Amino acid sequence: MSNVTGRKFATIEDVARHAGVSRAAVSKVIRGAYGVSDTMRERVNSSIAELNYRPRVAARAMRGSSFTLGIEIPEFGNPFFIRILKGATEAIAGTDYQLIIAPADAGIETDAVEGYRALEALADRQVDGIVAVSPLVQADWLARLAERTPVVMLGRHDDASNYDRVVGDDAVGAALVMDHLFSLGHERIAHVTRSEAVTFGNSTPHAIRLGVYERMMRAAGHGSHVEVVRTGPTERHSFEATRALLQTPNRPTAIFAAHDELALGALRAVGALGLTAAEVSVIGYDDIDLADHPAISLTTVDQAGVEMGRQAVRLLIEQIAGRSEPVEYVSTPTLKVRGSTAPVRRRSLLRRR
Amino acid sequence: MSNVTGRKFATIEDVARHAGVSRAAVSKVIRGAYGVSDTMRERVNSSIAELNYRPRVAARAMRGSSFTLGIEIPEFGNPFFIRILKGATEAIAGTDYQLIIAPADAGIETDAVEGYRALEALADRQVDGIVAVSPLVQADWLARLAERTPVVMLGRHDDASNYDRVVGDDAVGAALVMDHLFSLGHERIAHVTRSEAVTFGNSTPHAIRLGVYERMMRAAGHGSHVEVVRTGPTERHSFEATRALLQTPNRPTAIFAAHDELALGALRAVGALGLTAAEVSVIGYDDIDLADHPAISLTTVDQAGVEMGRQAVRLLIEQIAGRSEPVEYVSTPTLKVRGSTAPVRRRSLLRRR
Repeated sequence: MSNVTGRKFATIEDVARHAGVSRAAVSKVIRGAYGVSDTMRERVNSSIAELNYRPRVAARAMRGSSFTLGIEIPEFGNPFFIRILKGATEAIAGTDYQLIIAPADAGIETDAVEGYRALEALADRQVDGIVAVSPLVQADWLARLAERTPVVMLGRHDDASNYDRVVGDDAVGAALVMDHLFSLGHERIAHVTRSEAVTFGNSTPHAIRLGVYERMMRAAGHGSHVEVVRTGPTERHSFEATRALLQTPNRPTAIFAAHDELALGALRAVGALGLTAAEVSVIGYDDIDLADHPAISLTTVDQAGVEMGRQAVRLLIEQIAGRSEPVEYVSTPTLKVRGSTAPVRRRSLLRRR
Repeated sequence: MSNVTGRKFATIEDVARHAGVSRAAVSKVIRGAYGVSDTMRERVNSSIAELNYRPRVAARAMRGSSFTLGIEIPEFGNPFFIRILKGATEAIAGTDYQLIIAPADAGIETDAVEGYRALEALADRQVDGIVAVSPLVQADWLARLAERTPVVMLGRHDDASNYDRVVGDDAVGAALVMDHLFSLGHERIAHVTRSEAVTFGNSTPHAIRLGVYERMMRAAGHGSHVEVVRTGPTERHSFEATRALLQTPNRPTAIFAAHDELALGALRAVGALGLTAAEVSVIGYDDIDLADHPAISLTTVDQAGVEMGRQAVRLLIEQIAGRSEPVEYVSTPTLKVRGSTAPVRRRSLLRRR
């Protein structure tokens, strides 16, 4: 059987035919058995590479479903990904499926996380399908992966032809943030976001949020106050960057953090400098569990991460059951207004007192 | 080859011999191929069960290392497990290993998480070894698992004969908590912990912390103030339980929460009722990332979760490389004093004013 759920892939026979050797010879090369000449090994390995043959996927076809779903996420530190995992776990409760999760390696050159290796590892572990959060993996690479395995991508705004996508409407969410800050009278608004490797192009969630920030600042006549602060992925990185920002002479009156973990770091800096929300408003993105804790009380955008995780698994199981037309599920974000944002204290008002 | 890293397991030949059939017949049953009689299938399956034969483990022996390490954790919601994953991820950085993580199912009858299914799923996914956080899995079951696969157990205080253990010294950590609260003058100290399914026996971390709490309360002459509040696993569960506790007439002056997520819920209740640390001290256990956030400032026990995760992977790789004598790594906890604990306000002092 070389065709599972409508997806074709190379069989050991295909490799043998392509290399012009016997099936047993291919099997020997794959097993690393003794008695294989270097020439034979090279010839078979080159056919394996050319045909994109996956011995373990072929084994899956023979064995049938493994009842395992793979999830690739960039990191465990960001509570938003934990919400996605929660939704995914809920979606398989009571089914025969088991989740396995592969964390991506951090990039070596940049702080951007890529995920190629984690995705390969899942595909090689005979999962029936993969949910992935890898905005930076190249589209053509993904399309090839999706030829072999059902794939659902989270937070990826592209036009996929053979995988499903679950995204939040980042343009709407970022506009909610900016409208809220403008309505409170803020003009000097800084945006704390990740490195340029993460906001590269215009289709990652962080690139879209950044783009909306810059456009709306200029449209509102505050183009001269545009200030983009780049930082690493963790709360600590954001704390350091925000503390430096808040010690500049013309510090902003509000900070739009690209996600809640960065917002927690910004709140840490506000607290460490003895400032309050009346002096520096902070707004985040994601609505992590702790955002409504009274000690944190973070204004943020709820993009329904648990529901996104649930939908991703639902779509994946649909694909495994045979659906081949790609589907996009868009989560519409809402604003949660809490204590970390307040009306701007205008200098002019202060002077009049 | 039926012996990898010194561990024996059944081969397909063993099954064939035991069932009194040919190797090809066993292979047919395993593959679910046509042309197998019901009698044959039953006979082979009963030998497979009796010999605990794992076709995929046998395949691993043939193929050699999969360079995959499995980690089983009870849940993603608890930030302490995230720290363990962080340490594990750090430990494999730069190696050829890939982590895959399987979350345990929540128990149906209780809120206790067992992990049998997740552990089986990892073993069946050809991992080279398993790190597991499953205090409730039965010791003899674990010992059988460890016969087939190198295993490191986290937070399990038992005398293992064939797996490694990485534990925090929970007795020392709980004593640090109680000594700190006593030194601040507290006598009415409540303990917020998980259900009896989780504190069962005397070898789980939560059972040990509970035991130390009760013994030290009695030893200090405050036996009549012992109050154990049972709650579910999340911050929300703890919030509800603590809020109810703090609305009783003789509310405690201090709360020892069995882990930091429960402590965050207790802090939420303190905040929601308009109380301060001077009225109700809260102390946790784990020192999660957020514990030192100025808005939280949680006094807690640091049991070095990142280092525990790192050591677990280090020990696992040692086992994979051939070590067969079990090793125990004990992490000695330290106290982190922050703003959530304060000297008791005695009623007698208040009366004197």
